[in-house]
Amino acid sequence: MSAIPEEFLQRTAELSLESTKPMDGSTKIYVQGSRPDIQVPMREIHLADTAASFGAEPNPPIPVYDTSGPYTDPNVEIDLLNGMPDVRSPWIEEREDTEWLDGPTSDYGQQRQSDPALASMRFEHLHKPRRAKTGHNVSQMHYAKKGIITPEMEYIAIRESMKLQALRANPEYDKVLMQHPGMSFGANLPNEITPEFVRDEVAAGRAIIPANINHPEVEPMIIGRNFLVKINGNLGNSAVTSSITEEVEKMVWGIRWGSDTIMDLSTGQNIHETREWILRNAPVPIGTVPIYQALEKVNGVAEDLTWEIFKDTLIEQAEQGVDYFTIHAGVRLQYVPMTAKRVTGIVSRGGSIMAKWCLAHHEESFLYTHFEDICEIMKAYDVSFSLGDGLRPGSIADANDEAQFGELETLGELTKIAWKHDVQVMIEGPGHVPMQMIKENMDKELEDCFEAPFYTLGPLTTDIAPGYDHITSGIGAAQIGWYGCAMLCYVTPKEHLGLPNKEDVRIGIITYKIAAHAADLAKGHPGAQVRDNAMSKARFEFRWDDQFKLALDPERAREYHDQTLPKEAHKVAHFCSMCGPKFCSMKISQDVRDYAAKHGIGKIEVAIKEGMVEKAKEFKEAGSEIYSKA
Amino acid sequence: MSAIPEEFLQRTAELSLESTKPMDGSTKIYVQGSRPDIQVPMREIHLADTAASFGAEPNPPIPVYDTSGPYTDPNVEIDLLNGMPDVRSPWIEEREDTEWLDGPTSDYGQQRQSDPALASMRFEHLHKPRRAKTGHNVSQMHYAKKGIITPEMEYIAIRESMKLQALRANPEYDKVLMQHPGMSFGANLPNEITPEFVRDEVAAGRAIIPANINHPEVEPMIIGRNFLVKINGNLGNSAVTSSITEEVEKMVWGIRWGSDTIMDLSTGQNIHETREWILRNAPVPIGTVPIYQALEKVNGVAEDLTWEIFKDTLIEQAEQGVDYFTIHAGVRLQYVPMTAKRVTGIVSRGGSIMAKWCLAHHEESFLYTHFEDICEIMKAYDVSFSLGDGLRPGSIADANDEAQFGELETLGELTKIAWKHDVQVMIEGPGHVPMQMIKENMDKELEDCFEAPFYTLGPLTTDIAPGYDHITSGIGAAQIGWYGCAMLCYVTPKEHLGLPNKEDVRIGIITYKIAAHAADLAKGHPGAQVRDNAMSKARFEFRWDDQFKLALDPERAREYHDQTLPKEAHKVAHFCSMCGPKFCSMKISQDVRDYAAKHGIGKIEVAIKEGMVEKAKEFKEAGSEIYSKA
Repeated sequence: MSAIPEEFLQRTAELSLESTKPMDGSTKIYVQGSRPDIQVPMREIHLADTAASFGAEPNPPIPVYDTSGPYTDPNVEIDLLNGMPDVRSPWIEEREDTEWLDGPTSDYGQQRQSDPALASMRFEHLHKPRRAKTGHNVSQMHYAKKGIITPEMEYIAIRESMKLQALRANPEYDKVLMQHPGMSFGANLPNEITPEFVRDEVAAGRAIIPANINHPEVEPMIIGRNFLVKINGNLGNSAVTSSITEEVEKMVWGIRWGSDTIMDLSTGQNIHETREWILRNAPVPIGTVPIYQALEKVNGVAEDLTWEIFKDTLIEQAEQGVDYFTIHAGVRLQYVPMTAKRVTGIVSRGGSIMAKWCLAHHEESFLYTHFEDICEIMKAYDVSFSLGDGLRPGSIADANDEAQFGELETLGELTKIAWKHDVQVMIEGPGHVPMQMIKENMDKELEDCFEAPFYTLGPLTTDIAPGYDHITSGIGAAQIGWYGCAMLCYVTPKEHLGLPNKEDVRIGIITYKIAAHAADLAKGHPGAQVRDNAMSKARFEFRWDDQFKLALDPERAREYHDQTLPKEAHKVAHFCSMCGPKFCSMKISQDVRDYAAKHGIGKIEVAIKEGMVEKAKEFKEAGSEIYSKA
Repeated sequence: MSAIPEEFLQRTAELSLESTKPMDGSTKIYVQGSRPDIQVPMREIHLADTAASFGAEPNPPIPVYDTSGPYTDPNVEIDLLNGMPDVRSPWIEEREDTEWLDGPTSDYGQQRQSDPALASMRFEHLHKPRRAKTGHNVSQMHYAKKGIITPEMEYIAIRESMKLQALRANPEYDKVLMQHPGMSFGANLPNEITPEFVRDEVAAGRAIIPANINHPEVEPMIIGRNFLVKINGNLGNSAVTSSITEEVEKMVWGIRWGSDTIMDLSTGQNIHETREWILRNAPVPIGTVPIYQALEKVNGVAEDLTWEIFKDTLIEQAEQGVDYFTIHAGVRLQYVPMTAKRVTGIVSRGGSIMAKWCLAHHEESFLYTHFEDICEIMKAYDVSFSLGDGLRPGSIADANDEAQFGELETLGELTKIAWKHDVQVMIEGPGHVPMQMIKENMDKELEDCFEAPFYTLGPLTTDIAPGYDHITSGIGAAQIGWYGCAMLCYVTPKEHLGLPNKEDVRIGIITYKIAAHAADLAKGHPGAQVRDNAMSKARFEFRWDDQFKLALDPERAREYHDQTLPKEAHKVAHFCSMCGPKFCSMKISQDVRDYAAKHGIGKIEVAIKEGMVEKAKEFKEAGSEIYSKA
């Protein structure tokens, strides 16, 4: 482990050290864009040189995508009371299409701000909200359609590229740049991701940049099938739990392990204040499901929900800076009866709330009837839609049924409406789906929703493994990611059983990083194999420390290794605990390689054909010597 | 938990209670075949009735495949000193094609038996080995080709069917028999598995029954792509560890969680005696890699290996009762130089041993040149081949290369030779393969090896997650199982890092049960969805105890649930900790369903069209009442 400076510990005293310490053997770097205020964060993993016995060569640092924000940068002063550094305000300001509001314009936001009882828990440095000037649209899609490349788009192009052009130009990287051809199912993965490509994808609706103008702390990122596959992690307090600090800690913990966005699914007390703390300290986009809070406002009685309460909630959250809203506007009255014959009915919370409302009032959902009104709000703050799949299947039995696919068609219809307003859209997907039925989901989504990015929960490929649903769903997530899903919503081991703790969150996120990365490899995303190759080279060369550093979870890898062979000396041993010195296949492979290097592979082949016993003897002697040393 | 009788605890005192206690809420049942000595074990999971609020109905017991053998049957006296009950001896005897030997015929077997220093660790009740009478072939394939349906085949037909015909005939099961059509990639999955079907598959070489005549304790099982996908778990002592009792405990632990076969990969001390203890107490087939022990006999110097030593090892192990041998006969001299340019060379231990031998002697592998001699031994005891993939890729970079596929072609050639001798064959496969390259492995194996069953390790779909390689590989395993792989060799979280402990073994096995079951569902294996449907119904009806019982790992599911809501009362609560009472989507779904049941789905649809406000009001009232109760 790297030593952690004492002052760093103090500065981040409000968060646990385990959430904020720099990653093992890595440094935070910033790649500058076309202007000094475009500073794109990455992590570089530093590797040891290859030992003489394996050919003595340097192993250049490996850049990796970094979602952890300033928390893992020892040069940044972390102060939760002041929030994260501002990344985007100059860009927003110079567009001159927004104005400061005097304060929250929502009734609820005003009420919370003026309630003296909340003073102790309120984030201190509340900034005033921004909103689009009258007649303006501040969505990234709007700029993209007008041909404008925003700083956000350039930032993203640099971020997604992960220095690949520089790596290609540097011969030291030749050994790790090898990559298999992918199978992309129609995804368009350019050899180089340019700002213009980002703009074009956003303009076409194939990708979204969730970046509310009231969340300037966000480090811009993109969700679309022609980019790296992203993952989302959830947090949220509930009726039972939990303190504000706990929620901030969970968010920082989640992005440490690689969560690209965080959804705040709080349903308990003081969720307005909790959300403010999370947003002000979040370098990743934050998504919410506004209907949860709206339901709290009517004391949990779904029938009492109204468009006015919902609208006020949207404005309240948009002015805080929420980057995307899950809105279940596809749960139309006509689909509700279709769920009666299901094995598990409606399993989406938002979906069931709206189903109940529709049936109780015997009216079309107000989310559907007011969809254009919602778009007006979204475009004034650049909040993206995550059109919720309220009728997703909750069991293998219910997969791909008429209710699910009926709703998907409606989501496509709504996508068109949102795009008419230049509002960014992604589409939520299942759920529980057996493997042979996953691809139909992806294909149908692309067709019905005009290639808007798909954002799925799993899918879980069997129902019979509660306690392991991160795995049942990780299997499905890897597949749908490969087929074209843009973002994978994580599932933890506690799914169906209880609320995840920190360890569950970590396992859920790493599982989904695996699924997303396996999908990137399978699609053939340029550069995706660099880290795998670096890991495999380190493995072959017995550079144990480098294997830990290159791992998605360096701490867990080191811990497991040390359980069997705890001695520091073994970190450079030319064998390991699994096979012991006599059986090391890696060592034998090196013998083969050394032999080939000495005599040339061609010569071995000739020798084989001619049966040159002399050379064989020579090898035998060299081999025996190697063994006797071990 | 069921209460464990005191005397049961005592009888199994040498094993841990956690490995031998009966599974929660289940009973062991035996289905009798055409003769009284065909008693096929299964586990039946007993479920509670559906509560009145969900429609008051019985939920009949769910039969599941059971690999745990007599250990989980409280009516069987477990005595490790005497070994497991004899299942197959009468069947073997009545075929009248075997003879008792006076004792081991291998030099090594004789030497170990007569060594007084080993008395204390030797299994006491050694039976004499059996061997085919001169000129006879005792393989199941031999019988199958002659048109004989052996008791083993009938046993397997009953076992694989899992009472499906009886379930179909009983209307109580109607609600759990629903199943989606599968996508089988050419697998032939009959609606009913008959003994004749089993015979036909074995005769064609599409399936194997690993069942050495010296392992009469085995409960017959089958490996083939037209049957349930199987999994293998590994154990084995090594230079560092471990006691004989520990290895037996690991075996029992592994089959408890669902391992269909166990490979004993021991490389340490006293592996002959350890193997005897495992075999005498194993109700599942045991596989080994004989070259490991042969190498021990020459003190780890690969160059000193000879055909004679290897042959003696095969006979030694065959006479103990090993059911399948991994033999790396495809590592031919000509392929070895192809590995020099790989990122990770040769990663198979057996493969690297043979590569080293080939290069050192500059000769063709003795496994290849003596392949027909090996077949002669295999057929005298009915040991099945697991033709090892000694050149499997050890990294994403090396996947599907010429060395790997060259060896696969050789394995196909050897398959033909083995079949000429009526020796059963399965083919081992990779390894590390990105998702888009997995199917090529399966397709090529089916073509090159004439549909012999494929048995793969993973494959791992990325290299960057040490500590989580059960997941990186579970993703690949589920896919290749779906494409047609017959058995999946598990990977634990410690892969690449160290030796697995019991918890790692459990996690590895459950992960692979998930992969295998997800594959069965995707292929459309008849009846595969019954357990999923029963689980989903229990979930919808809030039968928490039934959800735990139906889980692949009931204890883990219960433990996780109890971490959040530990009170016993909550086990029947109509909500759970994730959402709390107000947000329960399942409850709302039930409201929808109740409404539909009362008024008819058709009527709701009519009501929707006609806007019948009256009915809506009625529902609203019913709904409010439900909420106020919560």
